[in-house]
Amino acid sequence: MSERKNRQIALATRPQGEPKESDFRLIESPVPEPGSGQMRLRTLYLSLDPYMRGRMNAGPSYAPAVEVGGVMVGGTVCRVEASNLDQFQVGDIVVAYTGWQDYALSDGRGVHKLDPNFAPVTTALGVLGMPGMTAWTGLRNIGQPQPGETVVVAAASGPVGSVVGQLAKIKGCTAVGIAGGERKCRYVVDELGLDACIDHRRGDFADQLRAACPQGIDVYFENVGGAVFDAVLPLLNTFARVPVCGLVSQYNATEPPRGVDRVPQLMQQVLTKRWTLRGFIVFDFAGQQSDFLAEVGPWVRQGRIKYREVIIEGLENAPRGLIGLLRGENFGKTLVRVAT
Amino acid sequence: MSERKNRQIALATRPQGEPKESDFRLIESPVPEPGSGQMRLRTLYLSLDPYMRGRMNAGPSYAPAVEVGGVMVGGTVCRVEASNLDQFQVGDIVVAYTGWQDYALSDGRGVHKLDPNFAPVTTALGVLGMPGMTAWTGLRNIGQPQPGETVVVAAASGPVGSVVGQLAKIKGCTAVGIAGGERKCRYVVDELGLDACIDHRRGDFADQLRAACPQGIDVYFENVGGAVFDAVLPLLNTFARVPVCGLVSQYNATEPPRGVDRVPQLMQQVLTKRWTLRGFIVFDFAGQQSDFLAEVGPWVRQGRIKYREVIIEGLENAPRGLIGLLRGENFGKTLVRVAT
Repeated sequence: MSERKNRQIALATRPQGEPKESDFRLIESPVPEPGSGQMRLRTLYLSLDPYMRGRMNAGPSYAPAVEVGGVMVGGTVCRVEASNLDQFQVGDIVVAYTGWQDYALSDGRGVHKLDPNFAPVTTALGVLGMPGMTAWTGLRNIGQPQPGETVVVAAASGPVGSVVGQLAKIKGCTAVGIAGGERKCRYVVDELGLDACIDHRRGDFADQLRAACPQGIDVYFENVGGAVFDAVLPLLNTFARVPVCGLVSQYNATEPPRGVDRVPQLMQQVLTKRWTLRGFIVFDFAGQQSDFLAEVGPWVRQGRIKYREVIIEGLENAPRGLIGLLRGENFGKTLVRVAT
Repeated sequence: MSERKNRQIALATRPQGEPKESDFRLIESPVPEPGSGQMRLRTLYLSLDPYMRGRMNAGPSYAPAVEVGGVMVGGTVCRVEASNLDQFQVGDIVVAYTGWQDYALSDGRGVHKLDPNFAPVTTALGVLGMPGMTAWTGLRNIGQPQPGETVVVAAASGPVGSVVGQLAKIKGCTAVGIAGGERKCRYVVDELGLDACIDHRRGDFADQLRAACPQGIDVYFENVGGAVFDAVLPLLNTFARVPVCGLVSQYNATEPPRGVDRVPQLMQQVLTKRWTLRGFIVFDFAGQQSDFLAEVGPWVRQGRIKYREVIIEGLENAPRGLIGLLRGENFGKTLVRVAT
């Protein structure tokens, strides 16, 4: 045990704009020994998610910022390696929030055992985890799509957007995705079964989106912000609902765009078209997790809801993985395989 | 009958920015004779309301625009002068939507009889009419104030804002008003019983508002937009609700303000603070009218909810009355006495 090291990836400096690999630092510490009431977790998979960019900034967002020098936070699938807790045994596979490191101690709070026979354990970080539940709670509590309505979702091939789109189809809606690049768009239509998917990199993106939504948009599930939001706004119907889940295109922005201030105009449209714009995070609806798993779990097992994973090999490659994710380079739920 | 004329005020030209008296035109036509299934209504009171500015613009807002040359629309209290309808008798006092004119024909649709013993008939255009119900439905369905929360309302001495503030006090909230001028602010605190009222014309308005809301703002009932909205935004708590009811400070704007575009920043705050911004108009909740009257009617009769009226004498003065209302010059619910 003594020759093993705990590799950790810490925040070296707060990024200006897009994070660089030099904003992270690989550090090593001894593998921790669990005390009474503790267990040691070995990270198998680390989840990479857009919200992590916010944690790298100073000041609280949803949650406190990662301190400079502190280990990056994140959801993980781990194996219990040593346990002084009655409810966790060596060899158990769990979902936890132990961050960017090989090993962590835990007192069991917030840690849940996984049944590898229920679904592949990586799904606990994706379609059956935080991203999937984000999609489901945002639609259930805010979007409230009705049969025949048009639902538009950005980042439609990603772990949240892909579930939003497939749930909209199950609810009897017209579902239109937005994604970056031809390949992702084909996947969204051909594999996920959405009615259309528009490539936001095309010069005629706004026209294509309009053509794909002849009845306007009743629910826009907002993951990206920026230019995509701007193209959606003119299409939003009276009584449209906008669950605001993420704004990944804006996370690296350093300066607000110059020009005219469109806040008054936006509010005017909120008023006259009676839109609902509502921000949320999945933890706001934590009490709905069992309902989520009861509904979506069977659909995933039946293949009615599909998902796609991108596996990055090695903890040391996590920074590059997050940078690529924020650029929209990854195609599916991004996971880092830390150990097997 | 033949020598009497029906004076009507028509839209002469679409205003650029603030309306001018020359944007209106007084025209005369014969007093109309009711046919079968019709009655003739004599206007006693005409309601002036901020939404009328929107109807003067081209293009639909909530409702179709007033045509150039067409009679201005508006809510009225009328006396039935002649009736070929079984359910309306000569002498009945009714609330209707017959616009800026002395007389109108009606088939009875959308017209409701008033009981002068229930409350003064002018209240059907104010505290117990569209403005009061706007306040009540916006709080009930969107603001949802909880005891101990802080509710802020702009235009706090006006017909909507004054009801919002008093309802918030009844619900056990801290209620803070915003109004234009010392006199209105004193009324809001001394007569309506709000905890504080801040004059938005003061140079230190934003600081005063912050000081009056030491716990932040949980519900902001939006009537005005513009600089007041800007001062409210930094104070909105996590999970704040913003019923968007009106934006009177913006109605006369001709150009969006230049500078930076704050839409991305606003959406970022909607996301991280999980705000709800939701536009509405009272007609969206038309089915709740009997609940509204059952709850608020007794409070008005008991004097628990107070109201204030500004009576402008003479139909010919309605344009000046609306112009003053949009400037914030009127102090209370603005009515035009057309006849007695």
